[in-house]
Amino acid sequence: MRAIVLDNGLAFRSDYPPPARPPGESIVRVLTAGICGTDLELARGYMGWKGVLGHEFVGEVVESETSGLVGRRVVGGINAACRRCRLCAQGLERHCPNRTVLGILGRDGAFADLLALPDGNLYPVPDSVPDELAVFTEPVAAAYEILEQTAVPRNYRVLVLGDGRLGAVAAMVLAAEDYHVTVGGHHREKLAALSALGLAAQPEAELDGGYDVVIDCTGSGAGLLRALELVRPRGTIVLKSTAAAGANLNLAPAVVNEINILGSRCGRMSPALDALAAGRLDPRPLISGIFPLDDGLQALEAAGKTSNLKILIKVS
Amino acid sequence: MRAIVLDNGLAFRSDYPPPARPPGESIVRVLTAGICGTDLELARGYMGWKGVLGHEFVGEVVESETSGLVGRRVVGGINAACRRCRLCAQGLERHCPNRTVLGILGRDGAFADLLALPDGNLYPVPDSVPDELAVFTEPVAAAYEILEQTAVPRNYRVLVLGDGRLGAVAAMVLAAEDYHVTVGGHHREKLAALSALGLAAQPEAELDGGYDVVIDCTGSGAGLLRALELVRPRGTIVLKSTAAAGANLNLAPAVVNEINILGSRCGRMSPALDALAAGRLDPRPLISGIFPLDDGLQALEAAGKTSNLKILIKVS
Repeated sequence: MRAIVLDNGLAFRSDYPPPARPPGESIVRVLTAGICGTDLELARGYMGWKGVLGHEFVGEVVESETSGLVGRRVVGGINAACRRCRLCAQGLERHCPNRTVLGILGRDGAFADLLALPDGNLYPVPDSVPDELAVFTEPVAAAYEILEQTAVPRNYRVLVLGDGRLGAVAAMVLAAEDYHVTVGGHHREKLAALSALGLAAQPEAELDGGYDVVIDCTGSGAGLLRALELVRPRGTIVLKSTAAAGANLNLAPAVVNEINILGSRCGRMSPALDALAAGRLDPRPLISGIFPLDDGLQALEAAGKTSNLKILIKVS
Repeated sequence: MRAIVLDNGLAFRSDYPPPARPPGESIVRVLTAGICGTDLELARGYMGWKGVLGHEFVGEVVESETSGLVGRRVVGGINAACRRCRLCAQGLERHCPNRTVLGILGRDGAFADLLALPDGNLYPVPDSVPDELAVFTEPVAAAYEILEQTAVPRNYRVLVLGDGRLGAVAAMVLAAEDYHVTVGGHHREKLAALSALGLAAQPEAELDGGYDVVIDCTGSGAGLLRALELVRPRGTIVLKSTAAAGANLNLAPAVVNEINILGSRCGRMSPALDALAAGRLDPRPLISGIFPLDDGLQALEAAGKTSNLKILIKVS
């Protein structure tokens, strides 16, 4: 099958072996996939990943033991848990120490004709939700995760730091949930695009401090230092982005100001899919380009350009 | 007066000007002071502090508008707030942006014959509590602060990382509050001393992971990296120590495992003093040496030796 493969560099391959279907898993024909900052970090060496990239997708089930799934259009939770360990028993499947993660850890990803995921990870998409909307379910779920981890009062001043695709989705979710949210970033064009979507977007250098919550979507280890300047004493910083590179950090300000720094990763797929289906938010204006899978390498290159927000790969 | 002064190097001076008494403040004759890791970091350049060092003390009020205070033995909260700003109005005086901090920020400290603090910062010490116990009120308050910031269920496995004076006091407070707490450290002698006090102390390299809460008292920016290895997914790391130097940190594990990193600084003095007066804990076995103020420089040198735990300065 065709696939974008990371293995000592990125390559488009047309002869990649299709996934086998273990018991309890389904084979999904990928329709559309989305490129995330994590994909670019993986290409830079984060996690030491080798294999097919991609974890945001919508696809059609072509093979499954669960007869109701075959032929259904689905999105998928990316963490495949063992469902036998203590963390799984506690409902923390997304933190299962034995997990594989689609396109990130031990499991080939979505920039390919076919992928495999456990049946329990698949969520049928209502017919009313087109592929280009459904493909946002995973990043929208990751943004909703913030509100599942910590109770944020509605009158809190929330800042999203970073005007990239991650920050944009986080800000859209918070706005959809009736928070007053500001996006701070470096890129004039992106800030203008976000303003056009009705979001309060400001050059990061012009921001005043004192935010109750700062969500670091900068994709840079040093974003935390700026977040520490912008959050109020006893406030919360949510770390949303992972990066291959570290940064020289002195966390003394976090101690002095008693800041709560909260790491935040994947979220539950159903509430995110429900929000998209109900029209609570529509991230499609963030799409900067759609490339066929055969041009997947150009798609990744485009995703790395600061002028672009979301880049999609149309697989079939 | 005599004082240990930091100003392009540490010096003992016998001609330092005594503090003036502004309205609303008292002059305290210092009886005994304690040396904290922060003092050593200040001497290394943390906060750019110049002036008299020292913020842990017990003393006697010699001058005050509040007549009931004169002649009383007191300990003192180290943050002198403006009591006029929004944070003060919210009860967050310890985070007042206009604050001075005894021996740390804009206010000469306790390694001297006399110091000044607002009357409201002073807490009379019961006669039953000797100087060498009362002088622990400030670090004990800082340890209790952890339990005021976050609710830690009693059945949680708590690890104190760092076998120095800060870790020892934190572990004693948690043990006093009926937590099962382990101390992990690098120093055989200190671990033996802590074991002799009834604490579960283990070489840090031998620790297994999976702790619900890890309290980083290492005094090193890199302590956080080890804490991230030892805490369970969705667990909490409390940052207790500040350091002049940063460290190269990649916080991706905090994102992936959704760790809560909580900065923690000073606590309320009254509950700490109450706990000491009630005999809930007695940190006096941690005292490794007591030096007269005239030998204050040797005291600081002794405090910097890894074989020592708490070093006190007997002022008068």
